[in-house]
Amino acid sequence: MITLASDFPSPYPAAMRGVICSRSDARIEDIAHDFPRQDVRATAFWLREVLPYFPPATHCVVVDPGVGTDRAAVVVEAGDHYLVAPDNGVAIPVARELAARSGADTGTGTTDPAFSVWDVDYADDETASNTFHGRDVFAPAAADVHDAGGPDALERCEQTDEWVDLTFPDPEVVASAARGEVLVVDGFGNVITNIPGETVSDRDTIRVGGESVAVRDAYAARDPGEKLVTVGSHGNVELAVNRGRGDEAFDFAVGDDVLLEW
Amino acid sequence: MITLASDFPSPYPAAMRGVICSRSDARIEDIAHDFPRQDVRATAFWLREVLPYFPPATHCVVVDPGVGTDRAAVVVEAGDHYLVAPDNGVAIPVARELAARSGADTGTGTTDPAFSVWDVDYADDETASNTFHGRDVFAPAAADVHDAGGPDALERCEQTDEWVDLTFPDPEVVASAARGEVLVVDGFGNVITNIPGETVSDRDTIRVGGESVAVRDAYAARDPGEKLVTVGSHGNVELAVNRGRGDEAFDFAVGDDVLLEW
Amino acid sequence: MITLASDFPSPYPAAMRGVICSRSDARIEDIAHDFPRQDVRATAFWLREVLPYFPPATHCVVVDPGVGTDRAAVVVEAGDHYLVAPDNGVAIPVARELAARSGADTGTGTTDPAFSVWDVDYADDETASNTFHGRDVFAPAAADVHDAGGPDALERCEQTDEWVDLTFPDPEVVASAARGEVLVVDGFGNVITNIPGETVSDRDTIRVGGESVAVRDAYAARDPGEKLVTVGSHGNVELAVNRGRGDEAFDFAVGDDVLLEW
Repeated sequence: MITLASDFPSPYPAAMRGVICSRSDARIEDIAHDFPRQDVRATAFWLREVLPYFPPATHCVVVDPGVGTDRAAVVVEAGDHYLVAPDNGVAIPVARELAARSGADTGTGTTDPAFSVWDVDYADDETASNTFHGRDVFAPAAADVHDAGGPDALERCEQTDEWVDLTFPDPEVVASAARGEVLVVDGFGNVITNIPGETVSDRDTIRVGGESVAVRDAYAARDPGEKLVTVGSHGNVELAVNRGRGDEAFDFAVGDDVLLEW
Repeated sequence: MITLASDFPSPYPAAMRGVICSRSDARIEDIAHDFPRQDVRATAFWLREVLPYFPPATHCVVVDPGVGTDRAAVVVEAGDHYLVAPDNGVAIPVARELAARSGADTGTGTTDPAFSVWDVDYADDETASNTFHGRDVFAPAAADVHDAGGPDALERCEQTDEWVDLTFPDPEVVASAARGEVLVVDGFGNVITNIPGETVSDRDTIRVGGESVAVRDAYAARDPGEKLVTVGSHGNVELAVNRGRGDEAFDFAVGDDVLLEW
Repeated sequence: MITLASDFPSPYPAAMRGVICSRSDARIEDIAHDFPRQDVRATAFWLREVLPYFPPATHCVVVDPGVGTDRAAVVVEAGDHYLVAPDNGVAIPVARELAARSGADTGTGTTDPAFSVWDVDYADDETASNTFHGRDVFAPAAADVHDAGGPDALERCEQTDEWVDLTFPDPEVVASAARGEVLVVDGFGNVITNIPGETVSDRDTIRVGGESVAVRDAYAARDPGEKLVTVGSHGNVELAVNRGRGDEAFDFAVGDDVLLEW
């Protein structure tokens, strides 16, 4: 199975799909093609949340502000999964997660589980454009990695120790407060922070920027239009409004500092 | 085959897809993931229009304002189809339609054809979130119902007589007028009412809210920008504008009363 | 394989998908369903750019402002591909491209390679609506063409010499300037012209409407927010802004004249 994720408007993802279908019989499943435009960090967050639910697959990820520059293209092998992506860190958080889960399964997990990174060289093909590596580099590479069962069988792939890392900031948690930041805002308007859910899950209310807000385990535990603090499906603290938009009600955007006090 | 329908923004549907692929080899086809947010009635209307065109399948439907409350999850068996959905009525109109078509095929159709409803118990799993039952309840249930060939083979499913019904309002049709309401507005801006098409199909003009409007059997039978009344692909009266938006031209929104006179 | 392309809002494409699945086991892949609404020319441009990347397939294309009028439905056979579409020209540019590529492969290519056009008669079925031929005409025709291996095996298809052509305007290129027009604006805001890329690809700057703009081979070769002229993945001149919208920065819309001078 090959999955596709990008920030490409229609019909660009279809060109990638065509290239893959021309090289491989693999089943194709879409992750999303409306990731926040050229936002490597938000995409990295979402991939970490979503891809681990898939069975072993080759994931083709193209959020690539550096297309046409000399940034490398990489294949990351993590657990039984392969991630084909630009070398801008977008695939690293999910690679750590997949490697950790794989390690946990086999009893060999460590705090920094191993994954391996390979350079992929498809950009120098005569027919490769400088503006659409999704079609001309990442789609053919993903098809080939899938069909070859990994990068080590491919001449165009070479293992490397130099690659761009990406990590999410750690929150600061003390006795009576947690300070973190907004990682992403989802399409419902839910404000997803980097503060772990266990910080709030046993409380009835919590102060957000000085205002007391109910902590609830479901959106519908509040009346429509009312604010709540909850633990999202990702395990982090989420600021939400039942049937409304948390980002507007709390006035938070991606990257903002969040202070929770109790 | 498993179909997916929700009101979830990206990339939440992909998490459901991953869960299904991890449990089942079933082919997955999307119905839509942009149903009007938390609008159970509009989604129920569209499912009734669309799902009967599919071959026998398991349909996973998640428009679920009550997620995390004690609303049940259900499997509805209707004809050769299974609908896995929250117990809020969203799957009932299409279940009636599928059962009726099935009954018609075998000559046993009645005015209220039989379908059966089963409670599904996946929400108490330790790993189930309170905020994303699409991923943690409905997707695994749909995969299991599909692979088991129905709910009766599954321990977690129990047939029930208590479930939430949902019906669309009946229009009032008299000798010279029909009074109904707007059920949905589609993405073109076409205003879809609950008034049956045969009310207007033999007329040349009809009065809508007092204004005489041409009745035509195709949008393009009017000049671009001109209003028309037509019978939509669903069989109901539709208020439209050729190459324009009927909702704006007629000033109608979902739930508004519609008076047609002739 | 059957591909689907339309300008239909949700959930209309799902009804087409259901009809196809009910008639055929073919794999279905989406091209896009958000082509510019009822814009035959823009859709024709995108299909020509995208469909040639697919392996031989039956492509079901429905951008159809004339639905319900007496415009014909056609199957176009080009190379090893079939295009099922309204007879409004939408499938012709890609048919020329597919036929040319096919000819090139076999060494028989000419400047006007042959493709053949067939009338398809599904609209008179009793159950066909006048407003949704995507579901009632094109989807069943595409399934049948796919499963029959082409239109000549189908009674409802008849070869024809009368069909609606569609061509893109030729640019005017002289010693020191090129005059063309904007064919489409993509979802990034990139302004795609009909002027061939080789006109600019060897230059460092070019004047666009009198203003000197850098010519670069990648968006990221300019700072964020800066204008550039580049050769897009389609081979034509594109007016863009790194991480911004070219259409707004250059103030260009579809159909506008473009003057490049050097």
